[in-house]
Amino acid sequence: MLELCLEPIDSRSRYAAIAAKRCHRVKGHDGRCREFPYLLHLKQVAPRVADKIRRDATMTTGASWSSEDAGPNRILRWVMLLSDEELRAKYGIHMESLKPQVIVKLRQKKATYEDCMAVARKMTWLVYQMEDAPIPPSDIEEYLRAFHGPMHPGTTMCTVCRLPLSFRLFGKAQRGHSPVETCHSDPRLHTPDNVGFAHRECNIAQGPKTLDEFYAWIEGILQRVKGES
Amino acid sequence: MLELCLEPIDSRSRYAAIAAKRCHRVKGHDGRCREFPYLLHLKQVAPRVADKIRRDATMTTGASWSSEDAGPNRILRWVMLLSDEELRAKYGIHMESLKPQVIVKLRQKKATYEDCMAVARKMTWLVYQMEDAPIPPSDIEEYLRAFHGPMHPGTTMCTVCRLPLSFRLFGKAQRGHSPVETCHSDPRLHTPDNVGFAHRECNIAQGPKTLDEFYAWIEGILQRVKGES
Repeated sequence: MLELCLEPIDSRSRYAAIAAKRCHRVKGHDGRCREFPYLLHLKQVAPRVADKIRRDATMTTGASWSSEDAGPNRILRWVMLLSDEELRAKYGIHMESLKPQVIVKLRQKKATYEDCMAVARKMTWLVYQMEDAPIPPSDIEEYLRAFHGPMHPGTTMCTVCRLPLSFRLFGKAQRGHSPVETCHSDPRLHTPDNVGFAHRECNIAQGPKTLDEFYAWIEGILQRVKGES
Repeated sequence: MLELCLEPIDSRSRYAAIAAKRCHRVKGHDGRCREFPYLLHLKQVAPRVADKIRRDATMTTGASWSSEDAGPNRILRWVMLLSDEELRAKYGIHMESLKPQVIVKLRQKKATYEDCMAVARKMTWLVYQMEDAPIPPSDIEEYLRAFHGPMHPGTTMCTVCRLPLSFRLFGKAQRGHSPVETCHSDPRLHTPDNVGFAHRECNIAQGPKTLDEFYAWIEGILQRVKGES
């Protein structure tokens, strides 16, 4: 692995006290510090994909919540590490005023700043290996490879259905929904090993199950269907 | 099959001109005409289940539409048989003002009055055969049996996963969602042969696929997963 700069980056975020943003460029770099140096190229050629990586890696999402009971449905994942009491006293967030199932969902999405940074990097590594993805500049490829291994174009599969994912799907949003979503083998674990991409329909079908639970579930369905015929 | 009364029932519905409500009691019955005579018992012992049957059988549903783009998200299914022009001229419904995917969903849920009535009856027949379901009065059992065949307690399965469905699930609504939903083997066909009940998670996983497409899809997934390991 590369040794990183990790200098704190000035931030006006009210949550900076929980976790300071840090520079993720290689130690001893020239020029200014950057939190997501490996996203610079995607920011230029596919800004919405770069935004999606940063957002999904670091923020909780509302998923299918209706706006009414959503509460803080996009909040930094590491803020959800704080206790109800700390959230209320320090940030005026009243968890107890949210519906129980919203609280559960928000708390499930908690993750440390370090895990979120590693997830963003892993997602970028996966995106560049999708079919029809842009080719990363060599410095970014080297950076990503140092953490996650060699990159082979066109090898990123849907985590759920195991079919190749095309980068072009990102451009095909419908009703505000991308047909590719960030997906977790275990929906309660936001770590690089556990994160991937999936077709929206696959992610919806998996639901709150772990991937293993999902496969066991559909295997049981097929056994019963075949047993009937 | 029984011969039914089928006398028109007075209705203040503005859509009565499209399809008059008709009496579905046996021909030559005593007393007043009734559109859903076989729901009388459920109306007493489980009024919300009776309402659900009538609503799901006869109305389009908003499914997961957000309220904003829903338009007329609950409307009698047979109203959706009319052309855009008729809807506008006769009922002031402007289909063209809805989002294209909402129009598609509404139009997919169209069905004749007669099919909706047959669906409601079939759903009632299925409900009485769920585990822990109330026992139907003998006149209702005879009526339903005449159309859909003998009834065997505890034999109604989830259409998708083929596990037994318990009547008690109807009482376990969460966030306004029942864990049992009305389900269609072909989501574009609202007929008694094509309608059933499914766990909410199963119905969500099936999505817009036909049941055959869904089974083929999950079979492909399992083959790929096993091929990898």
